[in-house]
Amino acid sequence: MTLAEAYLEDPLCRPRAVSAALADGKARDISVDIPADFRLASGERLAQRRLVGRLHGCADAPLVVVAGGISADRFVHRTETKGLGWWSGAVSVRGPVDLNRLRVLAFDYAPDAGGDAPVTITTHDQARLLALLLDTLGEDRVEAFVGCSYGGMVGLAFAELFPDRVGELVVVSAAHRPHPQATAWRGIQRRILMLAQAAGRPEDGVALARELAMTTYRTPDELAERFETSAPDRAGQAYPVCDYLQARGRAYRNQTTPGRWLSLSDSIDRHVVTPEAIRTPVSLVGFTSDRLVPIDDMRELAARLPALFRFVEAPSLYGHDAFLKEDALVGDILRSALKEICA
Amino acid sequence: MTLAEAYLEDPLCRPRAVSAALADGKARDISVDIPADFRLASGERLAQRRLVGRLHGCADAPLVVVAGGISADRFVHRTETKGLGWWSGAVSVRGPVDLNRLRVLAFDYAPDAGGDAPVTITTHDQARLLALLLDTLGEDRVEAFVGCSYGGMVGLAFAELFPDRVGELVVVSAAHRPHPQATAWRGIQRRILMLAQAAGRPEDGVALARELAMTTYRTPDELAERFETSAPDRAGQAYPVCDYLQARGRAYRNQTTPGRWLSLSDSIDRHVVTPEAIRTPVSLVGFTSDRLVPIDDMRELAARLPALFRFVEAPSLYGHDAFLKEDALVGDILRSALKEICA
Repeated sequence: MTLAEAYLEDPLCRPRAVSAALADGKARDISVDIPADFRLASGERLAQRRLVGRLHGCADAPLVVVAGGISADRFVHRTETKGLGWWSGAVSVRGPVDLNRLRVLAFDYAPDAGGDAPVTITTHDQARLLALLLDTLGEDRVEAFVGCSYGGMVGLAFAELFPDRVGELVVVSAAHRPHPQATAWRGIQRRILMLAQAAGRPEDGVALARELAMTTYRTPDELAERFETSAPDRAGQAYPVCDYLQARGRAYRNQTTPGRWLSLSDSIDRHVVTPEAIRTPVSLVGFTSDRLVPIDDMRELAARLPALFRFVEAPSLYGHDAFLKEDALVGDILRSALKEICA
Repeated sequence: MTLAEAYLEDPLCRPRAVSAALADGKARDISVDIPADFRLASGERLAQRRLVGRLHGCADAPLVVVAGGISADRFVHRTETKGLGWWSGAVSVRGPVDLNRLRVLAFDYAPDAGGDAPVTITTHDQARLLALLLDTLGEDRVEAFVGCSYGGMVGLAFAELFPDRVGELVVVSAAHRPHPQATAWRGIQRRILMLAQAAGRPEDGVALARELAMTTYRTPDELAERFETSAPDRAGQAYPVCDYLQARGRAYRNQTTPGRWLSLSDSIDRHVVTPEAIRTPVSLVGFTSDRLVPIDDMRELAARLPALFRFVEAPSLYGHDAFLKEDALVGDILRSALKEICA
């Protein structure tokens, strides 16, 4: 059974059969066999055999790809079993990415959690894997690609590789290159993971690297607003802000593996597109408090994109995580960017 | 032999004997037995038996204490065996802290590198240990206390505890409290150290925690100026900025121990003084790019100090490390602050 057949097998997904049939929990997973001859740009081969995506929303509606950070997955919208999706604030029925008017494809980034060693995978590789998913779905072209953080980089790479396959890009908190400060922090996260792997404590490494990642996703102002500076009784015990970070780390310790994280973290640092080569119209959103993607890098990207449609720079208490927190602002921009498609 | 006797035993150090006798390499170590009944504020006891300081400069000149970050030690000025001191740019013959006109005391913070477990030690404890050194030297009072980073915190604590024992304070890049963002980063460094300790790889932990510390001492602009974003061939290999950080980490792996670092890192986060209680005149220097001691915290300190003499805020490419890098600016402020003492 091909992916398209699998998709059509569900009567709720049958094109034009029932409008809004997939809305709100009616999504379904789709998957594609990765061809045996598929090679990454590095020449490496993926160990995994299948790529999995998920279609949400209205079966006969215009197709939009939504892609998030390296922790995001195909569950962009809420499901009965897993609860809220990673971007339920934006992707929902009558939401900014309206599941009553659009069909939304999200997908799991490669590599899966199977291997211990890092895989050298580029954002262009992720874009090629997405193209495989679209081929199997029989979709030549998506109306829009909405990408946040790593997803924004993949969107830029997709538009660079496949200019005829995407109508417009919405890129939130991503640029044409990594900033060396961000590479420095991610490199330390990778070395935490490798130290913990070598010590036989991979999950402790994931938890601790996640703590460091969390500090880079947020802002000093948010931390100062939320946490007291009161000291614990003894050295070695946790301060309030550390309690919070440790809890976030523990909650993440089984969410990924060092091997997968090493690969995707490296992939961010390996990302590079030539803005001048991207002919697709782009809506760009950056936050001035973002410490991973400094607003100056987004300004440079905006200045170099030949078909810049709109560049919004906004303040936020939430830094790089603003796209997950600033629902109203991001929602307005998404509605505006997608309104012709939704009409 | 008492400390004062040990000091006087060196003919070069004999008060009024030879002016400028200790200048430029003529310093000498001094040490004091820590009394058996000495307790830290936590009630804990220090395992070490002795506290070591070092006197530099002119034996009969006014006494100035100079204290630096948690990596600093008593070797503030160059020595024949160890080369440059940690603040040779400021403390030298005819320098801003002029060894021809001043006698400079620097000291090693407690705890020493002997223990694996962290010691709960406050900046006020460090101030009390310094007072012991001064007692043994027979010095009731120092003309000035110049403290940078952790040394600035110890200076504030010293002035709060011993208002009659210090004529003026010069505080560079330190505030009355830690910022939760800085506590977050230091907490992660501590957990890197503890993970590596538990894994039996303490030196790897010191190296990796140092990498993270380095990113907090510097600025994104400096990293962007110095490092390309070119990617290595394979995931798992180092990017240029990571190469640099790893080299800095390796160079530091034998410079301290997890136990000592855990103690001093916690001590920074435990620091708190009441600015209103500090009657000593204070010259305050902050850098707007400092990510560990945000300029807003220094502004608050300045506003709350009853005897603020001068507050300088300056830009720098070097963030928290500016006091080690901005020789001209810091030198001018030091000369100005110390000129009445030197006269």
